[in-house]
Amino acid sequence: MQPVRGPLASEPQTVLVPRFCASLMEMKLPGQEGFEASSAPRTIPSGELDSNPGPGTGPSPDGPSDTESKELGVPKDPLLFIQLNELLGWPQALEWRETGRWVLFEEKLEVAAGRWSAPHVPTLVLPSLQKLRSLLAEGLVLLDCPAQSLLELVEQVTRVESLSPELRGQLQALLLQRPQHYNQTTGTRPCWGSTLPRKASDNEEAPLREQYQNPLRQKLPPGAEAGTVLAGELGFLAQPLGAFVRLRDPVVLGSLTEVSLPSRFFCLLLGPPMLGKGYHEMGRAAAVLLSDPQFQWSVRRASNLHDLLAALDAFLEEVTVLPPGRWDPTARIPPPKCLPSQHKRLPSQQREIRGPSGPRLTSAEDRHHHGPHAPSPELQRTGRLFGGLIQDVRRKAPWYLSDFLDALHLQCFSAVLYIYLATVTNAITFGGLLGDATDGAQGVLESFLGTAVAGAAFCLMAGQPLTILSSTGPVLVFERLLFSFSRDYSLDYLPFRLWVGIWVATFCLVLVATEASVLVRYFTRFTEEGFCALISLIFIYDAVGKMLNLTHTYPIQKPGSSAYGCLCQYPGPGGNDSQWIRTRPKDRDDIVSMDLGLINASLLPPPECTRQGGQPRGPGCHTVPDIAFFSLLLFLTSFFFAMALKCIKTSRFFPSVVRKGLSDFSSVLAILLGCGLDAFLGLATPKLMVPREFKGCRRDSMKYCSRHPTLPGRGWLVSPFGTNPWWWSVAAALPALLLSILIFMDQQITAVILNRVEYRLQKGAGFHLDLFCVAVLMLLTSVLGLPWYVSATVISLAHMDSLRRESRACAPGELPNFLGIREQRLTGLVVFILTGASIFLAPVLKFIPMPVLYGIFLYMGVAALSSIQFTKRVKLLLMPAKHQPDLLLLRHVPLTRVHLFTAIQLVCLGLLWIIKSTPAAIIFPLMLLGLVGVRKALERVFSPQELLWLDELMPEEERSIPEKGLEPEHSFSGSDSDDVSSRLGPLRRMCQGLGERSCPGAK
Amino acid sequence: MQPVRGPLASEPQTVLVPRFCASLMEMKLPGQEGFEASSAPRTIPSGELDSNPGPGTGPSPDGPSDTESKELGVPKDPLLFIQLNELLGWPQALEWRETGRWVLFEEKLEVAAGRWSAPHVPTLVLPSLQKLRSLLAEGLVLLDCPAQSLLELVEQVTRVESLSPELRGQLQALLLQRPQHYNQTTGTRPCWGSTLPRKASDNEEAPLREQYQNPLRQKLPPGAEAGTVLAGELGFLAQPLGAFVRLRDPVVLGSLTEVSLPSRFFCLLLGPPMLGKGYHEMGRAAAVLLSDPQFQWSVRRASNLHDLLAALDAFLEEVTVLPPGRWDPTARIPPPKCLPSQHKRLPSQQREIRGPSGPRLTSAEDRHHHGPHAPSPELQRTGRLFGGLIQDVRRKAPWYLSDFLDALHLQCFSAVLYIYLATVTNAITFGGLLGDATDGAQGVLESFLGTAVAGAAFCLMAGQPLTILSSTGPVLVFERLLFSFSRDYSLDYLPFRLWVGIWVATFCLVLVATEASVLVRYFTRFTEEGFCALISLIFIYDAVGKMLNLTHTYPIQKPGSSAYGCLCQYPGPGGNDSQWIRTRPKDRDDIVSMDLGLINASLLPPPECTRQGGQPRGPGCHTVPDIAFFSLLLFLTSFFFAMALKCIKTSRFFPSVVRKGLSDFSSVLAILLGCGLDAFLGLATPKLMVPREFKGCRRDSMKYCSRHPTLPGRGWLVSPFGTNPWWWSVAAALPALLLSILIFMDQQITAVILNRVEYRLQKGAGFHLDLFCVAVLMLLTSVLGLPWYVSATVISLAHMDSLRRESRACAPGELPNFLGIREQRLTGLVVFILTGASIFLAPVLKFIPMPVLYGIFLYMGVAALSSIQFTKRVKLLLMPAKHQPDLLLLRHVPLTRVHLFTAIQLVCLGLLWIIKSTPAAIIFPLMLLGLVGVRKALERVFSPQELLWLDELMPEEERSIPEKGLEPEHSFSGSDSDDVSSRLGPLRRMCQGLGERSCPGAK
Repeated sequence: MQPVRGPLASEPQTVLVPRFCASLMEMKLPGQEGFEASSAPRTIPSGELDSNPGPGTGPSPDGPSDTESKELGVPKDPLLFIQLNELLGWPQALEWRETGRWVLFEEKLEVAAGRWSAPHVPTLVLPSLQKLRSLLAEGLVLLDCPAQSLLELVEQVTRVESLSPELRGQLQALLLQRPQHYNQTTGTRPCWGSTLPRKASDNEEAPLREQYQNPLRQKLPPGAEAGTVLAGELGFLAQPLGAFVRLRDPVVLGSLTEVSLPSRFFCLLLGPPMLGKGYHEMGRAAAVLLSDPQFQWSVRRASNLHDLLAALDAFLEEVTVLPPGRWDPTARIPPPKCLPSQHKRLPSQQREIRGPSGPRLTSAEDRHHHGPHAPSPELQRTGRLFGGLIQDVRRKAPWYLSDFLDALHLQCFSAVLYIYLATVTNAITFGGLLGDATDGAQGVLESFLGTAVAGAAFCLMAGQPLTILSSTGPVLVFERLLFSFSRDYSLDYLPFRLWVGIWVATFCLVLVATEASVLVRYFTRFTEEGFCALISLIFIYDAVGKMLNLTHTYPIQKPGSSAYGCLCQYPGPGGNDSQWIRTRPKDRDDIVSMDLGLINASLLPPPECTRQGGQPRGPGCHTVPDIAFFSLLLFLTSFFFAMALKCIKTSRFFPSVVRKGLSDFSSVLAILLGCGLDAFLGLATPKLMVPREFKGCRRDSMKYCSRHPTLPGRGWLVSPFGTNPWWWSVAAALPALLLSILIFMDQQITAVILNRVEYRLQKGAGFHLDLFCVAVLMLLTSVLGLPWYVSATVISLAHMDSLRRESRACAPGELPNFLGIREQRLTGLVVFILTGASIFLAPVLKFIPMPVLYGIFLYMGVAALSSIQFTKRVKLLLMPAKHQPDLLLLRHVPLTRVHLFTAIQLVCLGLLWIIKSTPAAIIFPLMLLGLVGVRKALERVFSPQELLWLDELMPEEERSIPEKGLEPEHSFSGSDSDDVSSRLGPLRRMCQGLGERSCPGAK
Repeated sequence: MQPVRGPLASEPQTVLVPRFCASLMEMKLPGQEGFEASSAPRTIPSGELDSNPGPGTGPSPDGPSDTESKELGVPKDPLLFIQLNELLGWPQALEWRETGRWVLFEEKLEVAAGRWSAPHVPTLVLPSLQKLRSLLAEGLVLLDCPAQSLLELVEQVTRVESLSPELRGQLQALLLQRPQHYNQTTGTRPCWGSTLPRKASDNEEAPLREQYQNPLRQKLPPGAEAGTVLAGELGFLAQPLGAFVRLRDPVVLGSLTEVSLPSRFFCLLLGPPMLGKGYHEMGRAAAVLLSDPQFQWSVRRASNLHDLLAALDAFLEEVTVLPPGRWDPTARIPPPKCLPSQHKRLPSQQREIRGPSGPRLTSAEDRHHHGPHAPSPELQRTGRLFGGLIQDVRRKAPWYLSDFLDALHLQCFSAVLYIYLATVTNAITFGGLLGDATDGAQGVLESFLGTAVAGAAFCLMAGQPLTILSSTGPVLVFERLLFSFSRDYSLDYLPFRLWVGIWVATFCLVLVATEASVLVRYFTRFTEEGFCALISLIFIYDAVGKMLNLTHTYPIQKPGSSAYGCLCQYPGPGGNDSQWIRTRPKDRDDIVSMDLGLINASLLPPPECTRQGGQPRGPGCHTVPDIAFFSLLLFLTSFFFAMALKCIKTSRFFPSVVRKGLSDFSSVLAILLGCGLDAFLGLATPKLMVPREFKGCRRDSMKYCSRHPTLPGRGWLVSPFGTNPWWWSVAAALPALLLSILIFMDQQITAVILNRVEYRLQKGAGFHLDLFCVAVLMLLTSVLGLPWYVSATVISLAHMDSLRRESRACAPGELPNFLGIREQRLTGLVVFILTGASIFLAPVLKFIPMPVLYGIFLYMGVAALSSIQFTKRVKLLLMPAKHQPDLLLLRHVPLTRVHLFTAIQLVCLGLLWIIKSTPAAIIFPLMLLGLVGVRKALERVFSPQELLWLDELMPEEERSIPEKGLEPEHSFSGSDSDDVSSRLGPLRRMCQGLGERSCPGAK
């Protein structure tokens, strides 16, 4: 044997045969001295064992994720990395080779392919577990073994009576042999090149360089420990040799493990050759056992063999068994999206420690823990006038300085870039649509300026500074209606709008004063989805409608159509100019069929003709061919390209960074592609209207302004009356009331979503303060003639998502742990300052073709519509029951009831659409509010149980929730996890649709 | 108790306590008399038990699927339907309710939703199995119980010593109570409406009407038996009561089971209330056990309790165990696509019986059974001249009459419709492309006629009459090259082509005489995929190229372009006609800038102008606006629509019949949509050229014909020389050699695929006869000037697929059993007669726009390309290793080696493409053959092990296949099953791509 070189080894002080080892080691565990070894294996009682995991474990260093456990004063058990080293090559060329590893899931070495398999759920066969149990029962069990090096450990492990001294020597030499690890970094054909057993030339115990360089080391959290299972067939052994060691102090055991981690557990399973893969399977069984959290917990605290066997039996009690005829045992199951909660499995004391940072909870349990509709403390009514507002200011004030200091992190830079691009894209698209809808009274540059002013002000003042303001869907729809209303009554639009704004601000202040925000809990999913679906449909309808309108502006020329003729006529003899004038401009057929007689003409193109003093004559001169179809192509291209880029996120191609980038910037990239295509062909497609210069809120080039020649020199402020009679300023209160409803719904639903407990926000919310800010900004933007702003759900969630703090170190197959959000005001502020500076982009913006923007609108509408549960239920209508996905919803509610609920929603939506299409369109906010009433009436049709699954419960019902149906079941199929998360309440629903939906009203 | 009314009940002759019952019943099993009950449970040895499953089982009535077992003279065990009736409502309202059922997989009653869950893999907990075991060990076991009714059965089961007479009476009454079955037909809210326990008013034993009407009855094969598990908590029992009964004669036990099936097994598990769902889980465990094929086999033959327990233990030995911390036991696993083979599990004798009709085999095992590349007996060399041909004729002749009689089945009608539409679509698209490629020397009507003549002749004569001939990809590509070659040398095309055909026929006859078809085994997947990829790429390139060419024919008009001017000039004073003539036709700019001076003009559209005696003048008269973009739209629409329809097949929407229809007729529907769009807008898009009348193979309207005015009155036969020098008829041998290679490869690869053993064809193949027929038809079509024909893989496979015989009755979650193909000559014949009759469609065909056909070409190319493994490997190049699917390939071959293989294929493809682009393009068939050589050379680069996974092995290596890597592993993930099937050899690969690929060279 070689001299020990590794991490300093002292001689083992005590050498113990199994039973005594354990009972001696008991003394190491405080409070355990009097604990007698129980005679029969049994489950460890939760209270009897001390939760202090012995010396050497040290405080848990798992980063900020376990603040909760630290607060409780109980360190968390370190993560365990388990490795299976198999003895191969008997009898000629014995060598140890790592063939499997476990942290949460199993990774198998694909020997032939020279790579680690994808992490998968480990599957065992029952006999291997039973054999393992009997081998351990008869074998050597050393608990809290004081060995300080591999050599010491090997000496202790091989000190078994049944071995002769020569055998012991042979075995020790074998155990000290350096194992073969598949080195991930070398890559190519490591197994073809290194099949020959590398001679363990100097048996050094110092960890190898490759152990330190192992990329797995970076992934595992600091403080992780290792467990090694050595298994194999050894011909010279007469009988099986089993040993299980728990080291007192975790020690790096030379090159035993592929990563240089201190080892805590060591398991040896050797024996004479037997049929099948006996020892391989037993080794896997031991490794899987060690990777089980419950077993780990028990075995770290076990004081004797019986505890160990009891832990194994407890494991067996809980395994899932699949019948052999219906399941191929060699199939690999990918890691499930939702792991079962370990809450129930762990003893009560441990439960509190592991809870928050443990694996993700399944739906029903989460619901059980947080309550189905737990109101935020910020939504409690104080009962005093402006009481909520005052409380909000009090709550947020102490954090104000940290709101700027907390932004000093690199992550905030990328967040700024991402959110800036998204905001500018939104400003361009919504500004473009608004300009289109209001005949230019609102436009792109106003959108930039307004977004900058309102957004920055909100970031500095608001209760939830992570909110991004936007002039989004519902308000946009309303503004369009307001504009057509004012045009119908020949009103001066902006002054009228100013009064609407003043009234809205007043109403919102009343809502703030009366703490109306607490009513937000009556907006259940039914209301939100009705809201979202209507707005999405309006988007889709508008986008398609505006696109088709282009075919009227640029008509398609059919063969034989009269659009052919065009000539350039010069003044002079022949041709009767009055003839042209007489027939012009209506009756083209007349012109065509008319014999012009003798004229002086050429075939110059119209512009050239005009320059040379001629007049372009004929119906063909005015047509612009090819524009209609090219616009349609641009429209479809930008829509499908944006959709495809969004889908790339879940594809297997490219590294995830690239995929995320492509997906996050899908709108920007789609616009760029559209512009590129348009520029490449150079056709005269209609472009985004951008004024040459920006002066106040008026532009000369706009139709609106040209119709208001009385205000040529207007400045930054909107005149309070314009040409409108004074009483319109009072009448404006009526549309303002409707708009207030809309803004209240839109703003508060977004605020509730952003402030969900699941985001673990530390600095509290400010519902009343937020609404107050919106009211003030409403006034400001109305006076300046800028667009109106409300919190935008999607982009705000994207903002929060880009500021997520996550644990980087994670086991293969595990999802990273969510730690919280970087709550600060700086990223938003910078984004809006940049947006304001973007008015200098104006010269570039006029290259954006309108069809491209329409395509993006369509994309936004479709994405928003497809992300809500309502759409999923509509799809169910088209699916035969047999092919429906295994949704939790469908397990608990009869299909006909589901269809009935969907049908009612469809009818409501139809009614809303009809109202929207009538002259009474402007009252649609009231109808949206009416959805709350419809939902209330549904309680007479559906049982609370059904409504719980189809919707949420309204506040009154909270106490009477039937718990019966909430079994923590979920299906294996991927589609069901959607449903699982949808039961988690709006957070998960929204997280999933993050960036996929642009509907601000959707939770 | 009520009088027995059910299927005639005689008094039970013997009443037996468990152990004696079994030993008495032993006498019923011949050969079992001396078999002593072994003292300890053990696995049943395969040879010891007789395979005759006792009286009462009867001959297996499973339809034609088990012809194999019938031939062996051993009836198959009947299918078992298992139902779990739970006792609910203790203590107030006791009722039995069916809560689960099993055939292959588990279906759970979703009580709240009132529906059966989707079939899923049952999962158990270990303790329930253990508890079941001990309950059975202590309980009553009646094997071959002679009870003839439920009453008798209940009396026997309750005759336990531990029960007092009153208790026995109560229990019997309870057991005779009619259980609640969820009736699938009623549908709406059965559980809300019928929660009250229905009074078992008259306890009649006659099966209820709803039992007969149960839709499950139609699904289960005749002869199926039932097993019922009754489980629940019963407060008045002092100790658990377990009973297991195997009935001697299967008897319909009244309304016990939801379907009126004769019951074979009956299991009762009752006991005092205990914690948790103890009896529910035990009942499930018993049901799952009974549904296991191995357990079923053993328990049908068990002679005593020990056999029963041994079977349970054998089940436990083989279960798959999932650790509790990594798997949620309540998750539902959908039925796997591939079930593990039961071969190994069943005793050897049974193995032979179950084999062919058992569950589907996993890849490696299948490979193991059939051998990796087993040559068909038809491909054995006889060594005599035309020996293979003679053998083929001898083999097929006896079947000739049945080839017509076997077609008398309704399925053949739908097959004819489907294949006719596919054939006509192919004829139109390929005919259109051919007409385009040969300047009209070949066209749509020739395609119809040729397909009809050649196809019908082949159907009547060929060795494999299921083959559908088509003028498909490779031959089409070659013909285009041949045409451009003949044009380069100013040859008379059709006479030259005639000689090529004569030579090809000669060469093919030589190949038939020398039995060259046996060489087909050297075409491995490498060759086939190279072949397929090249042809697919040519399709894609051509489709896109032809589309872009349209933008030259119909230029896009940019703003300021000179294409505006157009006027109608009349003869008369003013305007200089010579000016027009001088500048015409080239220099348009001249015309535009030219001052026409005084002219007599109008603005009539060009056609109108000409009619009125004027002349349309100016560059704008010739342009057709909007056509380019509209063509592009049509092209994209038909492509994406066809792709989308194809994808509908795997979606969840619509009943499967609708989906299959939409998917099968995707090309037809896409063409119809394109035509509809085109007709709707009425633009002058380029249309398919179809002659007004069909006279011989010449048409006046074609460019080709107009350039051959020497042949105006040509008839049906192509003149042997035309204007060509005589020696071209000899020189034609050279291209003919190349074409022969192409036709040989194309024809034989298709033939091998169609005749794979997996299709279970009964009437044998005829490789040599098929090639002979192709040669003869080659001659015929050349003489008549019709397109050349070869077997088309995809459409032939679709033909076979539409003639599949499948077992209709199948268990929930199971895939239907494939029984064979209706081999006959009539469907093909009818299809081709209809195709011939389709020349009367000519007036309709001229409405098909060419861009639509180009879109379909693109679709065919993309579909063919995306279906081959090569494409999957190219995709792997773009995936980070972490995100790659868990393909078997990647488990056994290092990634770099996979990439190297893909790169070599890409280089080969690049070289082929370069050759195809040079003037030497015509030699590309030789290069395709060169792929065989490249593949041979790859044996020096890759190990046989690697080639086995990446490709197939060439014949020489067959004996040295390393079996080491062939572990029967497969992943759970869906994508991997692709790979599994791809290892199954070309059949499955093709089956999967059925209808998805149009590449005739692909296996």
